[in-house]
Amino acid sequence: MSLELTPSSFLRIGQLSNVDLNEDIHELETEVPRQRPNEIPHNEKLLSLKYESLDYDNSENQLFLEEERRINHAAFRTVEIKRWVICAMIGILTGLVACFIDIVVENLAGLKYRVVKDNIDKFTAKGGLSFSLLLWATLNASVVMVGSLIVAFIEPVAAGSGIPQIKCYLNGVKIPHVVRLKTLVIKVCGVILSVVGGLAVGKEGPMIHSGSVIAAGISQGRSTSLKRDFKIFEYFRRDTEKRDFVSAGAAAGVSAAFGAPVGGVLFSLEEGASFWNQFLTWRIFFASMISTFTLNSVLSVYHGNAWDLSSPGLINFGRFDSEKMGYTIQEIPIFIFMGVVGGILGALFNALNYWLTMFRIRYIHRPCLQVVEAMLVAAVTATVGFVMIYCSRDCQPIQGSSVAYPLQLFCADGEYNSMATAFFNTPEKSVVNLFHDPPGSYNPMTLGMFTLMYFFLACWTYGLTVSAGVFIPSLLIGAAWGRLFGISLSYLTRGSIWADPGKYALMGAAAQLGGIVRMTLSLTVIMMEATGNVTYGFPIMLVLMTAKIVGDYFVEGLYDMHIQLQSVPFLHWEAPVTSHSLTAREVMSTPVTCLRRIERVGTVVDILSDTSSNHNGFPVVESNPDTTQVAGLRGLILRSQLIVLLKHKVFVERANRSLVQRRLKLKDFRDAYPRFPPIQSIHVSQDERECMIDLSEFMNPSPYTVPQEASLPRVFKLFRALGLRHLVVVDNRNEVVGMVTRKDLARYRLGKEGLEELSLAQT
Amino acid sequence: MSLELTPSSFLRIGQLSNVDLNEDIHELETEVPRQRPNEIPHNEKLLSLKYESLDYDNSENQLFLEEERRINHAAFRTVEIKRWVICAMIGILTGLVACFIDIVVENLAGLKYRVVKDNIDKFTAKGGLSFSLLLWATLNASVVMVGSLIVAFIEPVAAGSGIPQIKCYLNGVKIPHVVRLKTLVIKVCGVILSVVGGLAVGKEGPMIHSGSVIAAGISQGRSTSLKRDFKIFEYFRRDTEKRDFVSAGAAAGVSAAFGAPVGGVLFSLEEGASFWNQFLTWRIFFASMISTFTLNSVLSVYHGNAWDLSSPGLINFGRFDSEKMGYTIQEIPIFIFMGVVGGILGALFNALNYWLTMFRIRYIHRPCLQVVEAMLVAAVTATVGFVMIYCSRDCQPIQGSSVAYPLQLFCADGEYNSMATAFFNTPEKSVVNLFHDPPGSYNPMTLGMFTLMYFFLACWTYGLTVSAGVFIPSLLIGAAWGRLFGISLSYLTRGSIWADPGKYALMGAAAQLGGIVRMTLSLTVIMMEATGNVTYGFPIMLVLMTAKIVGDYFVEGLYDMHIQLQSVPFLHWEAPVTSHSLTAREVMSTPVTCLRRIERVGTVVDILSDTSSNHNGFPVVESNPDTTQVAGLRGLILRSQLIVLLKHKVFVERANRSLVQRRLKLKDFRDAYPRFPPIQSIHVSQDERECMIDLSEFMNPSPYTVPQEASLPRVFKLFRALGLRHLVVVDNRNEVVGMVTRKDLARYRLGKEGLEELSLAQT
Repeated sequence: MSLELTPSSFLRIGQLSNVDLNEDIHELETEVPRQRPNEIPHNEKLLSLKYESLDYDNSENQLFLEEERRINHAAFRTVEIKRWVICAMIGILTGLVACFIDIVVENLAGLKYRVVKDNIDKFTAKGGLSFSLLLWATLNASVVMVGSLIVAFIEPVAAGSGIPQIKCYLNGVKIPHVVRLKTLVIKVCGVILSVVGGLAVGKEGPMIHSGSVIAAGISQGRSTSLKRDFKIFEYFRRDTEKRDFVSAGAAAGVSAAFGAPVGGVLFSLEEGASFWNQFLTWRIFFASMISTFTLNSVLSVYHGNAWDLSSPGLINFGRFDSEKMGYTIQEIPIFIFMGVVGGILGALFNALNYWLTMFRIRYIHRPCLQVVEAMLVAAVTATVGFVMIYCSRDCQPIQGSSVAYPLQLFCADGEYNSMATAFFNTPEKSVVNLFHDPPGSYNPMTLGMFTLMYFFLACWTYGLTVSAGVFIPSLLIGAAWGRLFGISLSYLTRGSIWADPGKYALMGAAAQLGGIVRMTLSLTVIMMEATGNVTYGFPIMLVLMTAKIVGDYFVEGLYDMHIQLQSVPFLHWEAPVTSHSLTAREVMSTPVTCLRRIERVGTVVDILSDTSSNHNGFPVVESNPDTTQVAGLRGLILRSQLIVLLKHKVFVERANRSLVQRRLKLKDFRDAYPRFPPIQSIHVSQDERECMIDLSEFMNPSPYTVPQEASLPRVFKLFRALGLRHLVVVDNRNEVVGMVTRKDLARYRLGKEGLEELSLAQT
Repeated sequence: MSLELTPSSFLRIGQLSNVDLNEDIHELETEVPRQRPNEIPHNEKLLSLKYESLDYDNSENQLFLEEERRINHAAFRTVEIKRWVICAMIGILTGLVACFIDIVVENLAGLKYRVVKDNIDKFTAKGGLSFSLLLWATLNASVVMVGSLIVAFIEPVAAGSGIPQIKCYLNGVKIPHVVRLKTLVIKVCGVILSVVGGLAVGKEGPMIHSGSVIAAGISQGRSTSLKRDFKIFEYFRRDTEKRDFVSAGAAAGVSAAFGAPVGGVLFSLEEGASFWNQFLTWRIFFASMISTFTLNSVLSVYHGNAWDLSSPGLINFGRFDSEKMGYTIQEIPIFIFMGVVGGILGALFNALNYWLTMFRIRYIHRPCLQVVEAMLVAAVTATVGFVMIYCSRDCQPIQGSSVAYPLQLFCADGEYNSMATAFFNTPEKSVVNLFHDPPGSYNPMTLGMFTLMYFFLACWTYGLTVSAGVFIPSLLIGAAWGRLFGISLSYLTRGSIWADPGKYALMGAAAQLGGIVRMTLSLTVIMMEATGNVTYGFPIMLVLMTAKIVGDYFVEGLYDMHIQLQSVPFLHWEAPVTSHSLTAREVMSTPVTCLRRIERVGTVVDILSDTSSNHNGFPVVESNPDTTQVAGLRGLILRSQLIVLLKHKVFVERANRSLVQRRLKLKDFRDAYPRFPPIQSIHVSQDERECMIDLSEFMNPSPYTVPQEASLPRVFKLFRALGLRHLVVVDNRNEVVGMVTRKDLARYRLGKEGLEELSLAQT
């Protein structure tokens, strides 16, 4: 994995880039010889991306405290009830969006498959099947073209499953546009077109992103895209609250996708939460339950059996009869072996995808090329499918099988081509068929070829500029080789009753998915809930854990890999284990631009306008005009707050002159959230520049601090547990000596030979 | 609930009781008029209890950092593997203990019921059933007597289910003896005797406590009770690591009790965790899975079907066939109604138990009385059961039923007394019977009488000085009225097929349990896993959530109530919502005894020996001999560390004189953990008193601090998220002005009319 590396990629592209860092770096390198990363790609374009860090700490100030003090117990209860109402709405809307996707996909895909099937049936007898191939490939390519066009040209952040982006959001890094209404619309349309276009993708992953966008929108009570403000839920207009709701939305998305409410909650927690809060968890759980219930009700009505609630998720693994398919202790080593296979295949998948992504970053970055690539993949997928079906001579009796679009091709009457059940179908249906078709429905050769082809197709597909998920393709690959494995076992053991191929297909699916995405607890529960059966809990856990351990030995999980490729300053759970030798002094940015408690407006404007720096938070120190040295820390103020102050011209001299000057309220800050205007849009006259601005009321008077001697793990723990954006480093006299931001902590990681420093994008 | 209140109960019984608090209190009361609690009982005995706070913050010092820096990546991997090995061992041992309890209870209870049944059968015909009653009551009372004796006289902390104690431990308060080996032995024997003695108790709750003790023991690699040190796992001898393992043990306990590994993890997290760490969660999950798997394997072998793994937990709700017993949308309002009923009945249960506990605290505090009360309850339980069975005329055909000990009594041949299935059985079996017996097995009168009687018996039983859980009795009460409800529904709807009484029994059980213990997410998952069916997830969630909301309206959950009755400084999830008006300045203890960085040994000894104070942590300030004012904060040192320093006589003058003086290692601190000797046991000569002690190397050089202006919610969040024990409050010049400990934060709570202050026990 050696890639081109320019020396600049090792430099700290710090938040405070106007600062002379040489001395600091020198000190670092002499004190602690660290390994330089030799496998992290360097890409100027990605490093120049600007992400926004979220602030999970309340940035509590006088205004906020005054408001909180005014609010009595009853008002807090109202706020709490509003939270529940929002969660219910998130659940309902997410469920409805899932229904919409499901129904539209089902109808469009059904239409497509019927057209192609009729065509194939027509030409099978009289020859000229190449025309059918052409039809199929053209249909797929044109549908995918539309899907790819809207993503590439309208909203590129809607590409892929969205899970890495939501992971980042929950971690505290906001990728631009990730929770906008436009993204949701493109995502939903895009995923429908991708699935209908026959790509090796699923519609489940995007549900998580959709749920998150819905949550972010509803909880703010307005849409900046539509320029509508409903003047409700204003209390929730800050990062803390919004992120909580986004967790609920992500959970609701998982819940709707897999009919797995508990799995959804665990997904949210495993991927996002750092501070576990019981009340929050209940709300998330509530949203999840409502979401799956809504989906279930609507789909049940749609399918004509209104009251039986039989469709809890977009994909349902179908009924596993635990009596017929129970497992015994002897099978456990077999499951573990499958986990190992899944881990290896998953790592291979990820490694191939890594190279492919690197290639794409370097050569396919123009939108037109991206659309062309997507169309190519769609056409190739159809062609491969067609050739495989054509060459396969695996005929199965049609009677008693549950195939939706049976292709007869060259089979005898009353029989269908078995390869077609896998290729000529939506992937969701193929997975369920592999789980539940009776033994003997597939011949080993078919399964082997299918696994091989689908593996490469899915790998090629992930990362295309289309909206699509990787869950279902992974499950499908795994189910195919798992079933093959089960058939082999059954053959080896002379048809023992326990070697049910469906059961092994399930384990294979778990192993493959675990090997690719590397989740354990949440995925165990999701699989358990999707099978509707807790009996398989233990073997699924074993398989997933083995797959994770084996996979981690080779290469990271797919989502983490893509996050790292995007140079996102992602904070993992803990600081690297060998980082105790680093202290706050060594990781912090220094010197820091400080503001005085009563500051000249001109100074503030100049600091904010300085394009070479990019500070988002400024320590406020005692205003002591007769000393030039840095004084004791008094508070912390954010760039966004300063901008609001400038915009409303809350200047001291002005206040003296005019009595009608409006006092700034918390509402003014909330109205500006989250898209604060840039400093360039604010006009400050020369007279005003000479006014003073009093920050006391607006700054956070008690920012969290650490002493210089604090070790990195300690700083990391504080930062991560409280979801901070800025952490001020002070010396023994409480004077500001530096500032730790997300990037300062995220750039260390444990490489093969010790601590490494990554180059990260700006925040 | 008005109870006697002495004025002293409102005083802050602070950690720093030698400090003049009057001014502080006065300031508090004038600034923020707060309500005084009018329902918190005051009990001198309980307030005089001394709990120990745990320190989840690493108390990182030079020694620790040096060790961490020496350890390379490979060594960290070894530590990580050790953690997994310990979790596996915790799982295996917890599973085995559960098996032991199950097998012994089954055999002893079987023996008892057979003896009594034979006796009843004998006397039914010829009269003289009062002799049978006497036999039954005497048998029960004597068995319970033994169980109560060992608890009351050997280890009182083994009483009850242990769940409140483990909740406290995970929250950060160690109740003395709670994780000792002796406690485990008494707990296991006690629970066997309670269940065999026919009390209205379950053996499930105590499993959680047992798992925790096992975890605490194994993870330390030694037993102080047995005076054996295996010299392994020494790295884990600190609060952080130990608490992580105890979480795993608690989860393994739940998992073994209910066959609910995911539920176990969630229980641990819901009750304990504040900082969610993915790696920790996986280990907890692993321990849970191993635990239920061990139990399953051993019990399957014991029951003669070695390979089928059919006994995942101590209680298994049996197979719910989702096809026969699915639910429809129309039933959802009915479920919600059941939740309301469960919430009300649960609140009633808790309120009655509260009064009973108050009575017990006041009048039944001598061990002998406690044993007598337990015997009385056992005899009354037997009598009530007997009278109910005797008076009941509810005969059912014996054929096709699954009754273990059918009592014929006055029924016709081939029939049995239906009341006896509920009373003349272990509660676990009764619950399963109520879930699964076919419609018509119970007559409504029987169920009504049973619910009423069992409700009061269970309420009386909880809090006795016996080792026993409340889960199963709650489920049993709920299953009984739920079934009654189902029968009524069936009657009202003229025997509609959907009104299956078994399903309603399940919902009733969930409602009642939820109304008493008030858990939601974890309990939903536990119930889901125990039924082996995810179909009921949504209705169970609805029922539990309704029960919680309704119950919370009246009175707290049973466990929280008992924790509060014990005056434990328990930290809830968030600071009271209306506490923004309080700041660190107002809640902190002040002034604080500080030590200088190089301190006279005599001073240290005097401070530690001062019986009127009880400090556990001391801020270390700059040694500036020529100024008397408090100087800048340099670090924090713990009482336990000082004691080890004194014990090893690490004094500066000595070191100058003798070159052979041994340097203190981290191991010396670990060896002393967790039972540090009292200061009285350490002899310091008059010469030594004049030596100096250098604390630099041993103190934590970067303790977390807050400024005085920080609001209570902010301080609370920091304290809770990081699991701190001490939080130093500093002024603008970084000088120590106070200290916040657990008690300072735990004493505020939101009462009916605003913020209240509780009186809490010492820590």
